[in-house]
Amino acid sequence: MSVPESDAEPEAPSPELFDKIVNLAKRRGFVFPSAEIYGGFRSTYDYGPVGVLLLRNVKDAWWRSMVQLRHDVVGLDAAILSPPQVWEASGHLANFTDPLVDCTKCQSRWRLDKLDDPDVCPSCGARGSFTEPRAFNLMFKTHAGPVEGAGHEVYLRPETAQGMFVNFANVLNTSRKRPPFGIAQIGKSFRNEITPGNFVFRTREFEQMEMEFFVPPDEAERWYGYWCDERYRWYLDHGMPSHLLRLRPHDADELSHYSSGTSDVEFLFPWGWDELEGIANRGDYDLTQHSKHSGEKLDYFDQATGERYVPHVIEPAAGATRTAFAFLIAAYDTEEVRGEERTVLRLHHRIAPYKVAVLPLSRKDELTGPARDVFDLLAARWMVDYDETQAIGRRYRRQDEIGTPYCVTFDFESIDDGAVTVRDRDSMDQERVPIAELVDHLAQRLT
Amino acid sequence: MSVPESDAEPEAPSPELFDKIVNLAKRRGFVFPSAEIYGGFRSTYDYGPVGVLLLRNVKDAWWRSMVQLRHDVVGLDAAILSPPQVWEASGHLANFTDPLVDCTKCQSRWRLDKLDDPDVCPSCGARGSFTEPRAFNLMFKTHAGPVEGAGHEVYLRPETAQGMFVNFANVLNTSRKRPPFGIAQIGKSFRNEITPGNFVFRTREFEQMEMEFFVPPDEAERWYGYWCDERYRWYLDHGMPSHLLRLRPHDADELSHYSSGTSDVEFLFPWGWDELEGIANRGDYDLTQHSKHSGEKLDYFDQATGERYVPHVIEPAAGATRTAFAFLIAAYDTEEVRGEERTVLRLHHRIAPYKVAVLPLSRKDELTGPARDVFDLLAARWMVDYDETQAIGRRYRRQDEIGTPYCVTFDFESIDDGAVTVRDRDSMDQERVPIAELVDHLAQRLT
Repeated sequence: MSVPESDAEPEAPSPELFDKIVNLAKRRGFVFPSAEIYGGFRSTYDYGPVGVLLLRNVKDAWWRSMVQLRHDVVGLDAAILSPPQVWEASGHLANFTDPLVDCTKCQSRWRLDKLDDPDVCPSCGARGSFTEPRAFNLMFKTHAGPVEGAGHEVYLRPETAQGMFVNFANVLNTSRKRPPFGIAQIGKSFRNEITPGNFVFRTREFEQMEMEFFVPPDEAERWYGYWCDERYRWYLDHGMPSHLLRLRPHDADELSHYSSGTSDVEFLFPWGWDELEGIANRGDYDLTQHSKHSGEKLDYFDQATGERYVPHVIEPAAGATRTAFAFLIAAYDTEEVRGEERTVLRLHHRIAPYKVAVLPLSRKDELTGPARDVFDLLAARWMVDYDETQAIGRRYRRQDEIGTPYCVTFDFESIDDGAVTVRDRDSMDQERVPIAELVDHLAQRLT
Repeated sequence: MSVPESDAEPEAPSPELFDKIVNLAKRRGFVFPSAEIYGGFRSTYDYGPVGVLLLRNVKDAWWRSMVQLRHDVVGLDAAILSPPQVWEASGHLANFTDPLVDCTKCQSRWRLDKLDDPDVCPSCGARGSFTEPRAFNLMFKTHAGPVEGAGHEVYLRPETAQGMFVNFANVLNTSRKRPPFGIAQIGKSFRNEITPGNFVFRTREFEQMEMEFFVPPDEAERWYGYWCDERYRWYLDHGMPSHLLRLRPHDADELSHYSSGTSDVEFLFPWGWDELEGIANRGDYDLTQHSKHSGEKLDYFDQATGERYVPHVIEPAAGATRTAFAFLIAAYDTEEVRGEERTVLRLHHRIAPYKVAVLPLSRKDELTGPARDVFDLLAARWMVDYDETQAIGRRYRRQDEIGTPYCVTFDFESIDDGAVTVRDRDSMDQERVPIAELVDHLAQRLT
């Protein structure tokens, strides 16, 4: 049984909603600007006590669907620091660039493709003052070892995907999987974006959830369709409403030269439709490139058919941080309750940061002691919040605002009857449940 | 009920064991050298299909103990990229250095404190050829935005701890915790080590599990003792044998100038005792430093007593990657079985990469179909491996080598009797269990 959904149709995201979410995120401990006591560090964010749980739940839900429940996908965790050879082969060193121009009058620097008028400097107003555009590589570069300079550069990976291609042979030789099979990875990537923005949507440091699915060439089209369906459904299954979600196939002129098909799962953000995930049919491009550059054979010999081939790759690549953000936006709801506005995050229970909050009615020892026993009972199984300060009504509102599906209140009567009040986030219905039955009661609703 | 432990006393780790573990790690998909097809990238490693699960289990076990089961600790996930101000305040910019010398004859570069003879170049043999030592900072530096140079440097964090100090006020204001309370974080850190080594023990990129516990100053000593005991016990509770583990208080001359007490949890590695975790009583150093540098008040006002104070900090800081490595070493065992050597990783079931392996006796469809149904049944609850290739004896040995506590074999009889054979990793005992009772049977043993 799943958490009862609200009947109310969520409103379409608006610019005002964007501000409300950013405000809520800060106020309730989802997201803090990074190094905020030093004035912040532009477009870098830290996930607070509630946000870290939201993000973990998004990643765990993905891992569960993509690795745990499948016998044909294994995981990987490759290093962030990586040598230039990898990015030479992948094409990132040559092509992962933005066009930049400098204003010769005021020395300001701009991304050419983002200027409204490419002839006028937006800073000093000079016309025709720009240098010729030059390609600015978006990879962060640093140096390993005590010597800086050529031969010691390393890059922060701009995507997790190459880790899977570079380890293809190692995984094939050790995991006893054979095509069709996938390698999945969750991890941080870094892009030196010139124009980050929209809160946590586009940041220089972000977290990806990528899977490379290796298939016989003649099955690529079929698996591409399979993964488009599967990934679109994943968001719906985790509570994303269908009117905020769409699967958009790329036009021919949007496709990478090696891709025979790409579709984006898009979410209706306050600023319009934007990408959560891309599902791409990448052909044999990646394995062929790495094979060429490394001199290693990256192919598969099928003993049943006697055929040797380079597997084609279907890649569902999702952003963990922006997906968490989209869940927040989709879940945000307000309603009037007894003349007051109630804000509630109607998150799917699998995504909700805390599943349960344990609230002793007052801070008297006779209540907080046994309430902590109830906490211990539930915490063995779920992520549970514990809050003993302020009036109970305010504590309910706080749990509503962070999306906690159930509040468990231990009151003076509980001492005598060994029962607690369980309050439902969405309906606000309250039910008296014996503590002896509490785990089962909640387990039925949180599975 | 827990997994039955072996009666055999594990042998003390030897240098040969080190090689065996590294070999096993590569062969079974625990750890691959990073970018191996390009010749590898020195001292950087990727975690393969089995290793990523081991590492996840170590981190999840820590998170469960340190965050989920506690009402007085919350989580955090701060950014890796961080501005110079943070590292100025923490002292890392000035003091997180190694002394380097250059040989003026052959231009080689050395870490002075690691040279056997600080007068002779180990590369060209020249005497007295070294420059004066200079302080080499171990933080990786890069640049954010399109302009390199002063004002645009950012650092890859060398530890996760500063994220907790910098966010102290934000967490205090949003989480409704008050001292004593903790902020916990798991994440990658980076140190430009001049001499990385010992496989995954000392690497430039590594993963930490750190917690900062903020307490009233007069309770610091008591909490320091509490966390020393608690953290030492954590390793024992997860299957580390006590003769390979010790808690070593630092001598006075080892202590940082701000620390009034530090103890290391040490493991007996093949090269000797070395650190898994440090528990430090850091006083009010960190909050005071950041308060001074940022101009923000980082203290706590206790409404009950009317006192305002800067909390003292107890910090248990563990290495996730080296702890995973230590679990591998501690679990490694060999024994003779019917004239053949069996290698088995006697990992605690919470740490074991897979909890169960489902093995159809043969690859015939009449077995693989229902065996996958058994996989689906179990995978909803646990991380389960599925393997249908090679003889069953070899598949058992493979599961032994990656530490899987239970193998479930679906054979021809299973089609008729609806039962499977459950094999215990440690005792190798086999038991026939009806599929209808399988989940309960395993749940009793894996809790």
